Amino acid sequence: MPKKIRLGILGGGGDSLIGVLHRVASHINDNYQIVGAVFNPDFEQNMAFAKEIDVPTDRIYKDFDTLIEEEMKLPEDERIQVCSILTPNFLHFPMALKLLENGFNVICEKPMTTTLEEAKKLQAAHEKAGTVFALTHTYTGYPMVRQMRQMIKNGELGRIHKVDAVYYQGWINEIIHDQEKRSSVWRLDPKKAGISSCIGDIGVHAFNMVEYTTGLKIKSILSDFNYLYEDNQMDVDGTVLIRMSDHVKGIIRSSQVATGEENGLGIAIYGEKGAFKWEQENPNYLYVMSDTKPTQIYKPGHAYNSELSLGGTKLPPGHPEGIFDSMANIYLGVAKAIRGEQYDSGEYPTMTDGVRGMNFIEATVESNKNGNTWVELED
Amino acid sequence: MPKKIRLGILGGGGDSLIGVLHRVASHINDNYQIVGAVFNPDFEQNMAFAKEIDVPTDRIYKDFDTLIEEEMKLPEDERIQVCSILTPNFLHFPMALKLLENGFNVICEKPMTTTLEEAKKLQAAHEKAGTVFALTHTYTGYPMVRQMRQMIKNGELGRIHKVDAVYYQGWINEIIHDQEKRSSVWRLDPKKAGISSCIGDIGVHAFNMVEYTTGLKIKSILSDFNYLYEDNQMDVDGTVLIRMSDHVKGIIRSSQVATGEENGLGIAIYGEKGAFKWEQENPNYLYVMSDTKPTQIYKPGHAYNSELSLGGTKLPPGHPEGIFDSMANIYLGVAKAIRGEQYDSGEYPTMTDGVRGMNFIEATVESNKNGNTWVELED
Amino acid sequence: MPKKIRLGILGGGGDSLIGVLHRVASHINDNYQIVGAVFNPDFEQNMAFAKEIDVPTDRIYKDFDTLIEEEMKLPEDERIQVCSILTPNFLHFPMALKLLENGFNVICEKPMTTTLEEAKKLQAAHEKAGTVFALTHTYTGYPMVRQMRQMIKNGELGRIHKVDAVYYQGWINEIIHDQEKRSSVWRLDPKKAGISSCIGDIGVHAFNMVEYTTGLKIKSILSDFNYLYEDNQMDVDGTVLIRMSDHVKGIIRSSQVATGEENGLGIAIYGEKGAFKWEQENPNYLYVMSDTKPTQIYKPGHAYNSELSLGGTKLPPGHPEGIFDSMANIYLGVAKAIRGEQYDSGEYPTMTDGVRGMNFIEATVESNKNGNTWVELED
Amino acid sequence: MPKKIRLGILGGGGDSLIGVLHRVASHINDNYQIVGAVFNPDFEQNMAFAKEIDVPTDRIYKDFDTLIEEEMKLPEDERIQVCSILTPNFLHFPMALKLLENGFNVICEKPMTTTLEEAKKLQAAHEKAGTVFALTHTYTGYPMVRQMRQMIKNGELGRIHKVDAVYYQGWINEIIHDQEKRSSVWRLDPKKAGISSCIGDIGVHAFNMVEYTTGLKIKSILSDFNYLYEDNQMDVDGTVLIRMSDHVKGIIRSSQVATGEENGLGIAIYGEKGAFKWEQENPNYLYVMSDTKPTQIYKPGHAYNSELSLGGTKLPPGHPEGIFDSMANIYLGVAKAIRGEQYDSGEYPTMTDGVRGMNFIEATVESNKNGNTWVELED
Repeated sequence: MPKKIRLGILGGGGDSLIGVLHRVASHINDNYQIVGAVFNPDFEQNMAFAKEIDVPTDRIYKDFDTLIEEEMKLPEDERIQVCSILTPNFLHFPMALKLLENGFNVICEKPMTTTLEEAKKLQAAHEKAGTVFALTHTYTGYPMVRQMRQMIKNGELGRIHKVDAVYYQGWINEIIHDQEKRSSVWRLDPKKAGISSCIGDIGVHAFNMVEYTTGLKIKSILSDFNYLYEDNQMDVDGTVLIRMSDHVKGIIRSSQVATGEENGLGIAIYGEKGAFKWEQENPNYLYVMSDTKPTQIYKPGHAYNSELSLGGTKLPPGHPEGIFDSMANIYLGVAKAIRGEQYDSGEYPTMTDGVRGMNFIEATVESNKNGNTWVELED
Repeated sequence: MPKKIRLGILGGGGDSLIGVLHRVASHINDNYQIVGAVFNPDFEQNMAFAKEIDVPTDRIYKDFDTLIEEEMKLPEDERIQVCSILTPNFLHFPMALKLLENGFNVICEKPMTTTLEEAKKLQAAHEKAGTVFALTHTYTGYPMVRQMRQMIKNGELGRIHKVDAVYYQGWINEIIHDQEKRSSVWRLDPKKAGISSCIGDIGVHAFNMVEYTTGLKIKSILSDFNYLYEDNQMDVDGTVLIRMSDHVKGIIRSSQVATGEENGLGIAIYGEKGAFKWEQENPNYLYVMSDTKPTQIYKPGHAYNSELSLGGTKLPPGHPEGIFDSMANIYLGVAKAIRGEQYDSGEYPTMTDGVRGMNFIEATVESNKNGNTWVELED
Repeated sequence: MPKKIRLGILGGGGDSLIGVLHRVASHINDNYQIVGAVFNPDFEQNMAFAKEIDVPTDRIYKDFDTLIEEEMKLPEDERIQVCSILTPNFLHFPMALKLLENGFNVICEKPMTTTLEEAKKLQAAHEKAGTVFALTHTYTGYPMVRQMRQMIKNGELGRIHKVDAVYYQGWINEIIHDQEKRSSVWRLDPKKAGISSCIGDIGVHAFNMVEYTTGLKIKSILSDFNYLYEDNQMDVDGTVLIRMSDHVKGIIRSSQVATGEENGLGIAIYGEKGAFKWEQENPNYLYVMSDTKPTQIYKPGHAYNSELSLGGTKLPPGHPEGIFDSMANIYLGVAKAIRGEQYDSGEYPTMTDGVRGMNFIEATVESNKNGNTWVELED
Repeated sequence: MPKKIRLGILGGGGDSLIGVLHRVASHINDNYQIVGAVFNPDFEQNMAFAKEIDVPTDRIYKDFDTLIEEEMKLPEDERIQVCSILTPNFLHFPMALKLLENGFNVICEKPMTTTLEEAKKLQAAHEKAGTVFALTHTYTGYPMVRQMRQMIKNGELGRIHKVDAVYYQGWINEIIHDQEKRSSVWRLDPKKAGISSCIGDIGVHAFNMVEYTTGLKIKSILSDFNYLYEDNQMDVDGTVLIRMSDHVKGIIRSSQVATGEENGLGIAIYGEKGAFKWEQENPNYLYVMSDTKPTQIYKPGHAYNSELSLGGTKLPPGHPEGIFDSMANIYLGVAKAIRGEQYDSGEYPTMTDGVRGMNFIEATVESNKNGNTWVELED
């Protein structure tokens, strides 16, 4: 008999959007119960938020170290089983590391770390710990994304020869075009935000989507960034040429200055026998194309979908599930893994995805700095 | 400080889709905690399901009457505050009635009752009780549906002169075309399913959508049903001409044999100054039309939306929320009402919607039986 | 060896849109040459227009009767072979009648006549004449409309049980809401425009589309008109319930006050095995639906289409052809008929379509006047 | 008074699609009359085709040189005024050159020449001749493409900072994946087809679309081609990074192996104040986007459009015009130029577009050969 998994939350208090996303997602399949948290570095706000969402306050801790310390004192069957890390980016690495070293399972927001070096250290710690580590590339939870992965695995597109992924947003326009704002916002300050804005924040989602759906590994990249203004130090737009194996090429396009775009993640995959087109803002429509047959529109919940896809749908066709459900599907996969149940490798992104993502980000920065030359990714 | 509302659940156990919908929706805004339930008439299954979703079993009751009896013994501040009725249709009325008579708040699945007569009795009981009663016309929870209502209220379409609502599904095809199936399924047996299949199940949603968005009352109707086969006794398709005030007319189209349609609820509203088009399967796209200006696509979460709409969105534009979120918005409105907080009348459907819905269903059956003549709705 | 057919034009001079449409359509497949015309009742304007479009002026006549008289004097192999009637509606009947009586082939704009009585007289004359008579229900020329017809003929939808056709426009709004304009415009004056505005002008196109695509005959109708204002005498909106054979029902929705709609003709056809959805404003996309398989998007020019459809496409897939090409396909069919070549019955609408259309218009007016009762169409 | 322009046709006989396109387009606005031609190098087929489309055979010549010779003998007011070159690519240059040298106006299919060197020679000849030279970048004739150009010119997007153009087709798949076919087809033989397949055939259209709509000049490019197989010598897929001025960057994506794509030309243009999205396969829908306002859908024929756009529409909104009409708009512009009437520079593509296009093609080939380095375009 399943019993709810004891979940700890780090960050995500107050109006945090990522907080809402994880909290709702964790509830959706009745698998998790929040038992402990550090929602906020300010203890008063931390407690107030716990009360607001009606989480018992006895295991609301003043900081992360206290959480670890106190939880470790509890008997194993009361202790937090998995912690979701929703804090600012630079805290992901130290928190995840300490959690793994103390035997906790971890659900970590993206980016996993701020450098590839940290990522590898975390990977080593994870191998040692042997617990579950999940990176929330949320968009891989959509049923039609999973359907693409499964159909490609089944060979339904034949050999893939071209991939075109995009992640366009326009929200940074109001900042970047204002000299005062662009020089003061933390997002565009490399000391605070890391080495990349556009690729680090969204381009890497497109990168992960390519590898998740196709099952192919990107071997080398050539990138071209746009900073838009001389006095701006962070990429707000980046195009990346990609190569998988010989003669299998593609593009990753990302932008934060694509005026009017909201959250425009999408992918097109072209193979010998067929092709896919999918867009995050209409996640329940998967276009399956062919040179000789009419384009087909696959939708979730139909018997013609794969098990991997159907496992991510709760209601009959025509009842639109959305991004909370996508994240919930990742939480569901993690629950299975924590409980030792069988699950498909496509059910949640792992440490490997995190390491590859950091590799990708660093490589694009290097390529752009070198004048747009090819840079190899590690194997 | 809000403290979670104590929620009781009637029905919705096992694989029940409506059960998942309500359970998830009740969690989404951190407002409700399930404290008691009769998930299933079979006590063993009832308990098993409670354990499966990890609800404490001490207030899982063997039947509805026991639930009432035992809960009434508890001090008021421990007692279930609101009960969600998710049982088969014929139980909605007796359960809702008894709950209201015992001072409980009620969230009731649609149809509210099986006859207009029952509906009126319930209405009387509700007036006496003075508690909160909500009917889950789920689709009114979508942010863009709420945006239509508010924009019309603000006069942005001017005088409305035509409304065209549709609810097309195709799922009954596999039953209706098979003589054996159509004579044995409970859905098409008037003794079990009530007086109407298509209008009662889905047409009434379209009816409610018309009145919810426009703020107009439908005064009279003329309906034409299709039973498809001589030996079938229930409508599987129904078209309804509607009249609001003089010279304001419209149509409600509903079908369960619209092959290939999934859950095709939609509405088009035409006014002097502008028009709306909206479809449930793409709920985050509202088309605002004009004879002289380009069509505009309104999407949730943008500052240009009304407060009523924005209150139903949790994430920034481009992060698709879906039907669970729509239902969650109704639960949120109910929570405000239960707590005595201020809320907009558009935040949840009420007893009045239920009475009007039953009136509509009975009127369409009568009109069709009379050879497609006009029938007045009550005021 | 084909030699261009000698075409005469009646009306369509100056800025006439219908004039452009027919002129371009007649050129498109290199089948017609304009040799004579009465473009305009004013002879000076008539001649000026002929010069403007560089048609030789020797056979530009001062009026229709002169055209007949003079052309009949010419040897048969020089004489106009077919006349396109693009004049105001009330002239269609007398002109078509005289043309047929003198042995000409006729291409006639819609409405064919102003009454059913006239239509039948014309039908009698046509039977006697034995020449070609085509009615330009332009929209039947679209390749994907023809594909629907052919697939239904081939039984690919199985038994059809529901049809939903629509023709929504909003252009009359600016007239109807202005008391002065609505009382002065000829369109809304029954003495000038005939018995119906909305049904007569556009509803009848939807009617024809239903019969053209399904191959079914509409047996009876019940209509509900909206005049919008007490002082307006013509329908500007009309909904029509339709019945084909027993248990095969449908709807025709038409409006000239559907704010923001441009030229919104569309059809949905639901059958036992599948369904179609098509819209005139995106004429190259045909949605083929099923309850169990993904929706398919048929597009013109692909080998999977029928011969009837492929015959209406000139360029490879992805090169959008439009309404001129649709009309050109009708002219192409007429050319084949005039030359005695083999053609499909779906290649141009005939006298029968015209008679049925007038029957439909008169029946809807009668039904509405009778308080929305069923009226039978003639067989 | 306009009198039809005397048009000569070179190539385009038989089933030639480009022949149909030009012939229909030249007729559409009643401006041209075909008076002479060499439809086919085989004189018998040439004459047969002239008869089939009913062009007088007295000026059907046995070859191009004869056409020039004989036409030059005719008095100027009978002589061909403009020749449309629709022959295989390698003949464009010599024919256009001789035509210009003899004082003819020229309409030339794309590519203008096979090398940049030829293009410059032609440019010199054109400057000397002073006649009209038009290059048929057909897609610039669409009303909504012209609307983009005009709105950008009017500053409605503000400073443009990113452009993303695409031209995806899938038709070469059936050839490229078949070893026998790919080694024998002329399209993939550099001796016959020139230096580039994908960029030369379609990428250059996307290049032209970028410059046409934005009014910006592309200064440098970096390209990455895919040949898909070792034994294939021609690009069948090419991605090009582009730079306009500093900090204004973009992408041109083109492919002939984008499985299931038909004729997928499209463009997205992002500026400080707004953005555009447009796709050739739905040419009548222009999406005008903003970070703060709802997306607007511009459609042809509405009064809110620019004069340049409205000049390319013949029918009211909602009557879809297509690719023939787009080409006809270019022919219309050429007619105005030949007649010495006023016209907008956006009404037809010129010699300059041809030279820049050849420069672009050669630069992408060079960049790819050099290992994907930046190559400057000439000013």
